[in-house]
Amino acid sequence: MIIVLKPEATQAEVDHIMEKIRERGLSPHLSTGQERRVIGVIGDERTIQNVPLAIFPGVESVTPILAPYKLVSREFRKDNTIVTVGDGVAIGGRLIPVMAGPCAVETKMQVTSVAQAVKKSGARVLRGGAFKPRTSPYAFQGLAEEGLQFLAEAKKATGLPIITEVVDSRDIDLVAQYADVLQIGARNMQNFRLLTDVGKQRKPVLLKRGMSATIKEFLLSAEYIMAGGNHQVIFCERGIRTFEQLARNTLDLSAVPLIQKLSHLPVVVDPSHATGRWDLVAPMARAAIAAGADGLLVEVHGNPEEALCDGEESLTPPKFAEMMDSLRKIAQAVGREI
Amino acid sequence: MIIVLKPEATQAEVDHIMEKIRERGLSPHLSTGQERRVIGVIGDERTIQNVPLAIFPGVESVTPILAPYKLVSREFRKDNTIVTVGDGVAIGGRLIPVMAGPCAVETKMQVTSVAQAVKKSGARVLRGGAFKPRTSPYAFQGLAEEGLQFLAEAKKATGLPIITEVVDSRDIDLVAQYADVLQIGARNMQNFRLLTDVGKQRKPVLLKRGMSATIKEFLLSAEYIMAGGNHQVIFCERGIRTFEQLARNTLDLSAVPLIQKLSHLPVVVDPSHATGRWDLVAPMARAAIAAGADGLLVEVHGNPEEALCDGEESLTPPKFAEMMDSLRKIAQAVGREI
Amino acid sequence: MIIVLKPEATQAEVDHIMEKIRERGLSPHLSTGQERRVIGVIGDERTIQNVPLAIFPGVESVTPILAPYKLVSREFRKDNTIVTVGDGVAIGGRLIPVMAGPCAVETKMQVTSVAQAVKKSGARVLRGGAFKPRTSPYAFQGLAEEGLQFLAEAKKATGLPIITEVVDSRDIDLVAQYADVLQIGARNMQNFRLLTDVGKQRKPVLLKRGMSATIKEFLLSAEYIMAGGNHQVIFCERGIRTFEQLARNTLDLSAVPLIQKLSHLPVVVDPSHATGRWDLVAPMARAAIAAGADGLLVEVHGNPEEALCDGEESLTPPKFAEMMDSLRKIAQAVGREI
Amino acid sequence: MIIVLKPEATQAEVDHIMEKIRERGLSPHLSTGQERRVIGVIGDERTIQNVPLAIFPGVESVTPILAPYKLVSREFRKDNTIVTVGDGVAIGGRLIPVMAGPCAVETKMQVTSVAQAVKKSGARVLRGGAFKPRTSPYAFQGLAEEGLQFLAEAKKATGLPIITEVVDSRDIDLVAQYADVLQIGARNMQNFRLLTDVGKQRKPVLLKRGMSATIKEFLLSAEYIMAGGNHQVIFCERGIRTFEQLARNTLDLSAVPLIQKLSHLPVVVDPSHATGRWDLVAPMARAAIAAGADGLLVEVHGNPEEALCDGEESLTPPKFAEMMDSLRKIAQAVGREI
Repeated sequence: MIIVLKPEATQAEVDHIMEKIRERGLSPHLSTGQERRVIGVIGDERTIQNVPLAIFPGVESVTPILAPYKLVSREFRKDNTIVTVGDGVAIGGRLIPVMAGPCAVETKMQVTSVAQAVKKSGARVLRGGAFKPRTSPYAFQGLAEEGLQFLAEAKKATGLPIITEVVDSRDIDLVAQYADVLQIGARNMQNFRLLTDVGKQRKPVLLKRGMSATIKEFLLSAEYIMAGGNHQVIFCERGIRTFEQLARNTLDLSAVPLIQKLSHLPVVVDPSHATGRWDLVAPMARAAIAAGADGLLVEVHGNPEEALCDGEESLTPPKFAEMMDSLRKIAQAVGREI
Repeated sequence: MIIVLKPEATQAEVDHIMEKIRERGLSPHLSTGQERRVIGVIGDERTIQNVPLAIFPGVESVTPILAPYKLVSREFRKDNTIVTVGDGVAIGGRLIPVMAGPCAVETKMQVTSVAQAVKKSGARVLRGGAFKPRTSPYAFQGLAEEGLQFLAEAKKATGLPIITEVVDSRDIDLVAQYADVLQIGARNMQNFRLLTDVGKQRKPVLLKRGMSATIKEFLLSAEYIMAGGNHQVIFCERGIRTFEQLARNTLDLSAVPLIQKLSHLPVVVDPSHATGRWDLVAPMARAAIAAGADGLLVEVHGNPEEALCDGEESLTPPKFAEMMDSLRKIAQAVGREI
Repeated sequence: MIIVLKPEATQAEVDHIMEKIRERGLSPHLSTGQERRVIGVIGDERTIQNVPLAIFPGVESVTPILAPYKLVSREFRKDNTIVTVGDGVAIGGRLIPVMAGPCAVETKMQVTSVAQAVKKSGARVLRGGAFKPRTSPYAFQGLAEEGLQFLAEAKKATGLPIITEVVDSRDIDLVAQYADVLQIGARNMQNFRLLTDVGKQRKPVLLKRGMSATIKEFLLSAEYIMAGGNHQVIFCERGIRTFEQLARNTLDLSAVPLIQKLSHLPVVVDPSHATGRWDLVAPMARAAIAAGADGLLVEVHGNPEEALCDGEESLTPPKFAEMMDSLRKIAQAVGREI
Repeated sequence: MIIVLKPEATQAEVDHIMEKIRERGLSPHLSTGQERRVIGVIGDERTIQNVPLAIFPGVESVTPILAPYKLVSREFRKDNTIVTVGDGVAIGGRLIPVMAGPCAVETKMQVTSVAQAVKKSGARVLRGGAFKPRTSPYAFQGLAEEGLQFLAEAKKATGLPIITEVVDSRDIDLVAQYADVLQIGARNMQNFRLLTDVGKQRKPVLLKRGMSATIKEFLLSAEYIMAGGNHQVIFCERGIRTFEQLARNTLDLSAVPLIQKLSHLPVVVDPSHATGRWDLVAPMARAAIAAGADGLLVEVHGNPEEALCDGEESLTPPKFAEMMDSLRKIAQAVGREI
């Protein structure tokens, strides 16, 4: 940690800061430059990160040297973590699994027929929501357990493992009975109790980036899960909120290589929620794979006009098949496969 | 609802759209302009808001006419709602109550002595967190029930009613035993299960705006609470996330008059979290009152250098007293009182 | 244009609005819904776009039906515009030209040797700045005409056409003597006098998106250039400003397919300025091509450590060559070539 | 400057960095912590600010210690700068001058009658645009010199000094003949040639914050003007672009105390452009004064319905008079006057 002092800082103020640092078992080193004096702190600065040094009299600025996360970092683990889903879909390796399915589970028929269609086109995992977080209380909120049962039927019919969202700690056991991956949605990225609780169970967790979460905060949320003992975490970039209104969010693809540099965990991309428009899904899916994404999450619906949720961004099965063909070529161009 | 058609939309496409509207019990009216045809929808458009008309072939754009919220709107209730806290602190009327106290409850002493100090300076409600949502899993997470007990002691000592945060549905009963107002934090503004659950109990709820929530989304989150039957909701503007990094967030004071136009519910402002810097709290508190805020939420700590949470933005009791003096003058200038 | 009336709007207010519309030669049509009355305006609404109807008494909201731009729109011209640069580099067709070179022209040697290197790796156009807009007045501001001369020498040596920035109307004639494409930088996207002036000359113009410009504003800035008679305009997405700080800007790749839908003009991407980090340039360049970009603008410097400008984001010639190999594969995967 | 090294940095890499620092005449000091080595740079780091140290092999991060601006900083000048406008309107002292008038000058009558009205209500300076930067090329672009003449007539009639925008260096001499203060608009905040050119003349300059400019960039733009020798610079906060769409921009009032801490120059606020809605102007004007603003810029139009520009945000003279009464009370409450 580097503490820059104000030019007018008094000796008493400097002593007070140095003492506080020593109190925490760290060593302060004062050095005097041409225009500023600087205190460098030697030792594990995490023990002092919660001390509000910035408000100590005489302090101009404080800059931490170490990242605030540990378990999720590349420093902690050099090699890529491979998260295995269901009977053997590996996320984080050469394969780029596509997880596809409807926004919301609506009927048994709907989800099974979509599952069959996306499997035929090459999807490796079935997605579908039984618990739906909706902006309006008057919108369809999902079928809850019945939806999970429909997903299970679709899994039986196709062999595809299931990813589905959990929105409340009280549902974790229930959802984990049916799901192969638990999804934490963007709105819950900083629901720390929920993070802690999914960290205590052992199903893999796909963590979506919050709408306005920095990458650093995103990593810290995964740290909550890993700190609980669950090391099977997948990051999902799904668009951030900006001033631009033509797409629902702004897909931040630079997050993919950035997170891959900072962390050993895999990163997938959701071009459906990122854009909110079906006609942007395929180009953004292609871009995601070209940028190095380790997987995709795509919404597919048999009849988007009748979808109870997010019809605007859903691909029909034929459009999905067409997109998958183009994705295979991009994957090959970057030395991977779908 | 207004549906603008693409210039090239075919008759079959137009018929298909009109039929879908009629299916939902509404009446479509087609009118032909110079450059575009437009379908106006007559009837309660809320019954059609979930239909993804934007993706119907031939549609260029869809514009709703009605707001998606109802109970929170000025149309639903013309007069201001007054939320009464504890034994008679009215929020939403002439009085502008200041709710003050530490970010986190740390010890019995700490919270009682701060409570006495802020009461002396004119605060009407005691704030303090027992359950703390923290970005890092390694930061102090709050004292939980013990913290609530300390708040209760401080209430006994001062008579100040208590506002404290609830972060998980499983804690609502416990927190409601101690608290006079339940606070929903910014990170939980779209934790819809938690909103639904605080809507089912009868303590007033202070709802903080999410870091990147639009005002429309903010109102919809309050609609969740009101839809559950709890009409005692207080909005709290606490800064939004922008590109500017010198303050922690950007306080959006225009939200105050905007929400007051759109809704009958009171709006308070939290200048402490909005800025993250104690030296900006007083000017922003003054600005909030001048903008018409119905209350303030302010962090005060006996010794910010030792605070376990948010010391950077905490006022000392003497600084708080000084600020209160200046706020009284502003309140008077806008015809109200602190 | 659709004007939604407030529920309480009086007949006199409605008459006043209708009269104002008729005054401008348009026809208002009033229709009465269940909860709101609506006035539809028939005729070329552009004649009324500057009337602040939103503030007329009785008006709740105003929604335009037509886009405010015309010449840049797909409606104005269905086919893609191909902009030809120099002796025949076509932008907007099957080829995806890469424009590469240093941020700033520094010496004759520097720019010629980079030009030779990037040509060898497949670049089609040489980029380099002689007039540099810099955030700080104390930073290197470019060599001005001498820099243009160095670019001309490099062009002579390699045959590569030149793109370079013009920052002031007074320099247009000078820059146009040397340049094959005039670049308008992000900070000048709404320098309307400069836009008007480059619209009067006949060299192609590459227009960079402003740091916080919406796509609609971006199109309107191109409209300024086209309205002056210059139809050779190339859009350049170069990242927008968001809350995320790990990369300099957030590359908004969804702008590529969005602009291609709304406009007939080509869209290129600048991954160097978008990220501000050389290690993100290649993945973002690959993503841009996968998303459908019609060209790239990439910074290359012989020795980034000594660069007078933007060394952080510059590729060395060997890294550029390596990237070009990977781009060729992506281009092929989307049926195009570099 | 503080350079943090990667854990794996080699001795050769460290030597290379240290050598580069010495080459620039500065002294590097290497210190070894528990988890990282750090190089502190002693000497005027501005001489090394353009060296891209972040990309040197072995470097993890680089943190400057000094602000990149000098003349605008409080360190350069402790006391507040008072900018005097016209015959003696002082900005930056106890008085909070209100600058009012129409967005655009339209007719001689219009501007003179508004000038008389706002003067009567207490405005100290007349604002009005003769050169208008407009998002659309089809919008009214201002009367140019004729507009300046109308402003001069209004000044003769009322004695109010004039502030008006200059959008192009070629107009500076012309505008300076008529204006008492030259305004640089938000879209030109980083038009560095224009900044340099207004820095060479001696009329005071009001510099508006760019739509997405950080405060640091804002200060650096003022540094351009001061570096040219013109020290009469006034900052103007006018709203920043965020995701919120109900107001045109988000007024960032915390910029007022922040800039006052960092700089000696006065800061005024434009609530009209910040909100884009006349009904938010008065509350935001009150908030600005409570936050410590040194002046206001307010749009007033005799008949906003007929305004050629920004009618939505213009106050009528009676509404302006009413607002001024409320502002006087707030000013008094903070120990100042209007």
